[in-house]
Amino acid sequence: MITAQARTMTSRTASFSTVTIERRDVGPADVLLDIVYAGVCHTDVHHARAEFGHTHYPIVPGHEIAGVVREIGAEVTRFAVGDHIGIGCLVDSCRECAMCRAGQESYCRNKVLTYNAIGRDGQVTLGGYSERVVVDERFLARIPDALPLESAAPLLCAGITMYQPLRYWGAGPGKRVGILGFGGLGHIGVQISHALGAHTTVLELTDDRRADAERFGADDYRTTGDLPALRDSFDLIVSTVPSAYDLSAHLDLLDFDGTFVNLGVPNEPLQIEPYALHTNRRKLAGSMSGGMPETQEMLDFCGAHGIKAEVEIIAAKELDGAYDRLGKGDVRYRFVLDTATIAEA
Amino acid sequence: MITAQARTMTSRTASFSTVTIERRDVGPADVLLDIVYAGVCHTDVHHARAEFGHTHYPIVPGHEIAGVVREIGAEVTRFAVGDHIGIGCLVDSCRECAMCRAGQESYCRNKVLTYNAIGRDGQVTLGGYSERVVVDERFLARIPDALPLESAAPLLCAGITMYQPLRYWGAGPGKRVGILGFGGLGHIGVQISHALGAHTTVLELTDDRRADAERFGADDYRTTGDLPALRDSFDLIVSTVPSAYDLSAHLDLLDFDGTFVNLGVPNEPLQIEPYALHTNRRKLAGSMSGGMPETQEMLDFCGAHGIKAEVEIIAAKELDGAYDRLGKGDVRYRFVLDTATIAEA
Repeated sequence: MITAQARTMTSRTASFSTVTIERRDVGPADVLLDIVYAGVCHTDVHHARAEFGHTHYPIVPGHEIAGVVREIGAEVTRFAVGDHIGIGCLVDSCRECAMCRAGQESYCRNKVLTYNAIGRDGQVTLGGYSERVVVDERFLARIPDALPLESAAPLLCAGITMYQPLRYWGAGPGKRVGILGFGGLGHIGVQISHALGAHTTVLELTDDRRADAERFGADDYRTTGDLPALRDSFDLIVSTVPSAYDLSAHLDLLDFDGTFVNLGVPNEPLQIEPYALHTNRRKLAGSMSGGMPETQEMLDFCGAHGIKAEVEIIAAKELDGAYDRLGKGDVRYRFVLDTATIAEA
Repeated sequence: MITAQARTMTSRTASFSTVTIERRDVGPADVLLDIVYAGVCHTDVHHARAEFGHTHYPIVPGHEIAGVVREIGAEVTRFAVGDHIGIGCLVDSCRECAMCRAGQESYCRNKVLTYNAIGRDGQVTLGGYSERVVVDERFLARIPDALPLESAAPLLCAGITMYQPLRYWGAGPGKRVGILGFGGLGHIGVQISHALGAHTTVLELTDDRRADAERFGADDYRTTGDLPALRDSFDLIVSTVPSAYDLSAHLDLLDFDGTFVNLGVPNEPLQIEPYALHTNRRKLAGSMSGGMPETQEMLDFCGAHGIKAEVEIIAAKELDGAYDRLGKGDVRYRFVLDTATIAEA
């Protein structure tokens, strides 16, 4: 039996505690990974505090996982012991639908999320705030040597979530891209957009992240007061804002045929003035992370361009405080849990 | 001085009356058109009853105009006396911006609407509920001989408003297109989508227009109760619904990378559950009529494929009643004003 120490919350209002969990035996297509770092995503807070309304307790969050292969199953071909590996939002999918066949597993209707979901074995999945995990090799991606594990972990969710819409909607030379919100997702999105060759502008509430944005490759940095002057001046805007905001005012920033990608999932519905879309033939798009082939492409791209998450490494006993700080946006720019601290916490 | 009898409303609550209006002299690039028919669009009701909040009274509505050339200016090259001509939503634009240079005049920020707008001469524009009008030849389109004028008039707004999104978003063989709302726009949209080769489904509240929809080329006809069974089954849906509706429930009908085009302008904002767009990487798009080159292309397409608006011809004195019926959706499928009846009303 494979066991691991993990950080768990036993109810919506509990503090984190350390427990021993079981992992399945290593099957023929499985990889046993020693988790080294796990990113702390805002979505973790939503799930752990039952803000999405469907949490299985005890919950072990974490879907930004970076680690080292300890053992492989007999049929594993793509990975070897010692490899640096990442796991993102998914640990399984139906593998048969059109989405799976196209390598778009994140759009599979029967995908299995890395935690707080029911796996094929009927067990609740337990995530990355843990010392080790067993996952089918299909749902693993190789982390390039150029990327330190702690900087790579957040790429497995934040990175692919930004990379997919930027690529799909054509960020590149001659394109004017806005990144709305300069936080965990935004600071990676700016680096990717810049590396793709797009003119990249950060849109933020206040001026206090300007220097950081420029350090990460932003060509411009604008705050709310600048919005009227920016009308009709973007081809693509990717919004990372997790709460309700004035969507129509930001749609107005798009030029002809421009696209606004909303990544956030506020608790209230989005509200749109119809004319904000009619004008300039604009469109509002959704996007949900990305499939495994594109996740690997993203990691390779980040490795080649030196794109890293800027992280604050925390110990297991600091998780509760980190959740509170995340709610206030008080992190530059991603918390990453050092799993070596779980057992002692 | 060129004069014409016209139907006007002098206030938000007035009934229509007949007045004599002036048209400008025929300039070098102008065409004087004898209006034969003018379609009655739901937008006319919004403007005439000040539901958009900015109406210049007395108002002469009408932006679906079909007529015959009576006189041309010295520099007019594209039209001759006796030609059948249509005028749509626009009678002028800046002619200098990127949109105008690209033939996308409907997206010009300084376009001049056919009525209830301020023209270059500083005068309020007066629309098609009138015996004649003078317009620059750039904003005219030729009506193919195959199309009777009364059936062509509604194409100048309803036709191009449907044609642009269907073409732009790729309606054609192998595509599954839904037309939401089978009224003035919808019954033309079905014909265009069918002629483009798309599998075309009408989505309506009730069953009572099924026979008509099939007569116009619909491959399928579904009502509200069918929605759950239609999840993930369309590539493109074009909504003609002018009032508030459950947008998220209809977004759920889109398959991967599907597009929902909303043409309506309800008085309340559109509301969207973010996940309805994240799922299947869907998008919501706006569209605003179309430019002059595409308007001509649309008329030629309709002429070649026998696509006509089904109309109920009304006399000038019936306009008030027609407006009331439009508010209830009680028309199959477009009212068209016979301008020969204006003087006697």
